[in-house]
Amino acid sequence: MTRKFNFSAGPAALPEEVLQQAQAELLDWHGEGLSIMEMSHRSAEYVGVATQAEQDLRELMQIPDNYKVLFLQGGATAQFAMVPMNLLRGAESADYINTGIWSKKAIKEAQRYCNVNVAASVEANNFTSAPVQSELQLDPKAAYLHYTTNETIGGVEFDYIPDAGDVPLVADMSSDILSAPVDVSRFGLIYAGAQKNIGPAGLTVVIVREDLIGQTLAGTPSMYDYKIHADADSMNNTPPTFGWYLAGLVFQWIKRQGGVQAIAEINRRKAAKLYAAIDGSDFYGNPVAVNNRSIMNVPFTLADTALEARFLELAEAEGLLNLKGHRSVGGMRASIYNAVPEAAVDALIDFMQRFEKEQA
Amino acid sequence: MTRKFNFSAGPAALPEEVLQQAQAELLDWHGEGLSIMEMSHRSAEYVGVATQAEQDLRELMQIPDNYKVLFLQGGATAQFAMVPMNLLRGAESADYINTGIWSKKAIKEAQRYCNVNVAASVEANNFTSAPVQSELQLDPKAAYLHYTTNETIGGVEFDYIPDAGDVPLVADMSSDILSAPVDVSRFGLIYAGAQKNIGPAGLTVVIVREDLIGQTLAGTPSMYDYKIHADADSMNNTPPTFGWYLAGLVFQWIKRQGGVQAIAEINRRKAAKLYAAIDGSDFYGNPVAVNNRSIMNVPFTLADTALEARFLELAEAEGLLNLKGHRSVGGMRASIYNAVPEAAVDALIDFMQRFEKEQA
Repeated sequence: MTRKFNFSAGPAALPEEVLQQAQAELLDWHGEGLSIMEMSHRSAEYVGVATQAEQDLRELMQIPDNYKVLFLQGGATAQFAMVPMNLLRGAESADYINTGIWSKKAIKEAQRYCNVNVAASVEANNFTSAPVQSELQLDPKAAYLHYTTNETIGGVEFDYIPDAGDVPLVADMSSDILSAPVDVSRFGLIYAGAQKNIGPAGLTVVIVREDLIGQTLAGTPSMYDYKIHADADSMNNTPPTFGWYLAGLVFQWIKRQGGVQAIAEINRRKAAKLYAAIDGSDFYGNPVAVNNRSIMNVPFTLADTALEARFLELAEAEGLLNLKGHRSVGGMRASIYNAVPEAAVDALIDFMQRFEKEQA
Repeated sequence: MTRKFNFSAGPAALPEEVLQQAQAELLDWHGEGLSIMEMSHRSAEYVGVATQAEQDLRELMQIPDNYKVLFLQGGATAQFAMVPMNLLRGAESADYINTGIWSKKAIKEAQRYCNVNVAASVEANNFTSAPVQSELQLDPKAAYLHYTTNETIGGVEFDYIPDAGDVPLVADMSSDILSAPVDVSRFGLIYAGAQKNIGPAGLTVVIVREDLIGQTLAGTPSMYDYKIHADADSMNNTPPTFGWYLAGLVFQWIKRQGGVQAIAEINRRKAAKLYAAIDGSDFYGNPVAVNNRSIMNVPFTLADTALEARFLELAEAEGLLNLKGHRSVGGMRASIYNAVPEAAVDALIDFMQRFEKEQA
């Protein structure tokens, strides 16, 4: 077995230690004689696993007691509908910030349920920055303000938490949750598809202030009602048990790394050296405003786009996988989530520098 | 490692061969240097896995070409809403047959969207049979007729496919899909949560006649629109990639057993001997009408209910797990899905007979 360096944007790399543990106990979890996948979600053993995962996430993110933590299905795409269906609470409009492809998807889905006020958009600059607070055209009557903390495709990350006053703040943190400390109390609701920094695809984590839930739009499916899930500890129906278990192993792995603060230092170092390598050469480029550069997703271009195919081919031959940019924007992208080791970033930089020299 | 016999109703036992294969390649799928869980769902490798799984399911169930096969999330509970949201198509009512707890859940959710005509209910006999065709009070204007082919909790299985004339037939086959051959062309839509006969929890398979989709109720979330998923080959958003992969391994395992016909013969033999053991003693009982006894879920009672705790304790000590009946009905239940080997049923019968003698 040879593990390669995987820069996939998602589903993405998982910590090798986590995969090893899952592998070791895949047919026989803790001597119980069956796989964790084969256990009833209502068994004492499984409920123990699920509860521990929630406790560990609460500890890692310092989630206040008046927030519910839900383990759901459907990814961010389901949340794009669940958020308005639950949080409109009689209001007719919501504020959205548009910073890229994921923001736009959230806006499009919300428009099925309410008037969307685009409080700010950076589409005019081709999504290469985030708007600053003073640019936000906020509606004090909005049901909530939604934004995408990190645009996975564009590599644009907010360097501040927007202030929406008394309007609840809703954040899609799919691609940067757990990458750095965040003050959860500033948010009404946080959601994240698991397949970047949490675990396998098919699991979605929602953190929601409990006073915001319980009033859904008419016609909301019961599976889209946060309150129903909250009241049942996310076991109103059978949850994605294996994903939830793996998420728990990832949370324990983060704790062993020293927690989110320690992970954040590594992430900043990884990102800083990669951006430095890009900026130190005219051969490579990144168009994002320096203060909004994502520490998770690093898109970059080659000055000579004709060399892209060769770059990807040689990188893959060296075991540097999935560096192709999203089909909607082209170029390259290195996703360097928590589970991507610093050695992977070092190997990528080394390759980039050799590739440049060979083309000179 | 000692694998025990697992009679869980779901999440349920998986074929040991499947778990062994998943374990062997968990950190390095086919020499690619990464886990199947760490792959982009849009990579050529993963799309190959996903496409093969669909082809194998089509072959196993002989699914006609005018049916779409979807790999979704949310389990049967999500389908309880998705079915009316997609299949009402302007109609105001749908017919439902009530044969137990799962039927009732489907009815309750459908009532959010339409008038539900209960075409037949066996609640009066405490859900111990399925209605016969002549008992069905069918509405020719119904949008569809919904029924539950096998009630997982009550252990009641239809021994025929209802004839609804031109009204599309919709079946929840969560707990008996792939247990025996079925003529898919008789159905408008079939759905099944994976966690009994297909794979791990968090995956749902939907088989739908393509002319029935494309007209959703106003307010339907895009994730609840079959057409959106069908047009995107179930990759409108990130699917539950690991579950889909495991389902594919299960489908290949069924093919190696000789297909659904061969599996059905084993299932009938397993069920027949267990029911014979129950019927052959006054110590055990099963209340279900003989022709409606499930070949997947076998509930049974002890004449002396005071012995139940002791029965479960001794069974577990012998490695016979998860025989406790559902909390809503009590008693015992042995779920003997495809992946539960005949040796497990033999061991259970042997234990039951010894237990009875010891109490005599």
